[in-house]
Amino acid sequence: MAELDTGLPSIRQVQNLIKDKTEVEVKVITNDLLVGKVRWQDENCLCLLDHYEQPTIVWRQAIVYIKPRP
Amino acid sequence: MAELDTGLPSIRQVQNLIKDKTEVEVKVITNDLLVGKVRWQDENCLCLLDHYEQPTIVWRQAIVYIKPRP
Amino acid sequence: MAELDTGLPSIRQVQNLIKDKTEVEVKVITNDLLVGKVRWQDENCLCLLDHYEQPTIVWRQAIVYIKPRP
Amino acid sequence: MAELDTGLPSIRQVQNLIKDKTEVEVKVITNDLLVGKVRWQDENCLCLLDHYEQPTIVWRQAIVYIKPRP
Amino acid sequence: MAELDTGLPSIRQVQNLIKDKTEVEVKVITNDLLVGKVRWQDENCLCLLDHYEQPTIVWRQAIVYIKPRP
Amino acid sequence: MAELDTGLPSIRQVQNLIKDKTEVEVKVITNDLLVGKVRWQDENCLCLLDHYEQPTIVWRQAIVYIKPRP
Repeated sequence: MAELDTGLPSIRQVQNLIKDKTEVEVKVITNDLLVGKVRWQDENCLCLLDHYEQPTIVWRQAIVYIKPRP
Repeated sequence: MAELDTGLPSIRQVQNLIKDKTEVEVKVITNDLLVGKVRWQDENCLCLLDHYEQPTIVWRQAIVYIKPRP
Repeated sequence: MAELDTGLPSIRQVQNLIKDKTEVEVKVITNDLLVGKVRWQDENCLCLLDHYEQPTIVWRQAIVYIKPRP
Repeated sequence: MAELDTGLPSIRQVQNLIKDKTEVEVKVITNDLLVGKVRWQDENCLCLLDHYEQPTIVWRQAIVYIKPRP
Repeated sequence: MAELDTGLPSIRQVQNLIKDKTEVEVKVITNDLLVGKVRWQDENCLCLLDHYEQPTIVWRQAIVYIKPRP
Repeated sequence: MAELDTGLPSIRQVQNLIKDKTEVEVKVITNDLLVGKVRWQDENCLCLLDHYEQPTIVWRQAIVYIKPRP
């Protein structure tokens, strides 16, 4: 995770979501709402795991918002 | 907030929205209109709190406009 | 307005729109057509004022075109 | 026009469209097809003039393609 | 593959998909779902091979997510 | 073609498409499918020629994928 600036709130909050295994909703620019737990982040992507532990590699450039599942 | 240039009007006005707890509308590229109060900003994201104080981390790259709620 | 290059025609023409208080149409990528007067620009955003002098902070990344209102 | 690299074919061809006052179609990401003559280009924008010589400042980031009108 | 940072998880995981010839789904911003095997990646693009071994060069900027086919 | 890195597979493959005058499909973010032969590429754009040898200058930022016509 070469240049991920862990001093930024946005990076730290995603780190917390990873650590706490929080279920999240990720809205992407195609208007899809992806649901899962964040497994890792790097400067290009996030990895989401669904209920079957299957990974989806989501490009940061396509993310609109992330929020904890209500 | 490593490289956020607080000399820029756009950064300062968002800082004012945070300080004044102004309710705002954030239009994003999926055409969703998010409503809430800005909690923090960094160079990648804004954090919006809704009426239940739930956070949504909004990517700057996806923002079209922000305005105070009428 | 740290790094706004006022030597560029596009920056100067927007400065003229600000100075002359020209009413403009701003088309954004969600296909909304925003109408108002440009109050300021910086390297990230433009600020539009509507008929009630309410501000909208428009992200440059979301702008498709600007033109004087016919 | 600070850093416009006139050695690039894409920049030079637009310069030719300006010089020759060629009528062009500019497709933008909202799917609008803008028609007019290119008046100038800089590193951020192109300026199109319509039949009434009214200018539209088009952001490069929103351009999909340009072609001479058939 | 000049500046592809193989220390990043996102780059390495795509390298694994290439090595293992995993069939993947690539969602792109036009909402198309491309299916195939990743043949190579560089800093701009991925190359997908379909069932007939025909290549499609996919621009990274257009990728929303990649996942192994279920 | 100042900074086009010809060591990258994606750049070289497009060079091959140019050299071989391969008919290609270019999908762009407006969902249009452009058909033609690639005449040149630079770091900003590709130029496509249609059946009447008319040029279309396509912005790289708007490209989703390119593939040889089946």
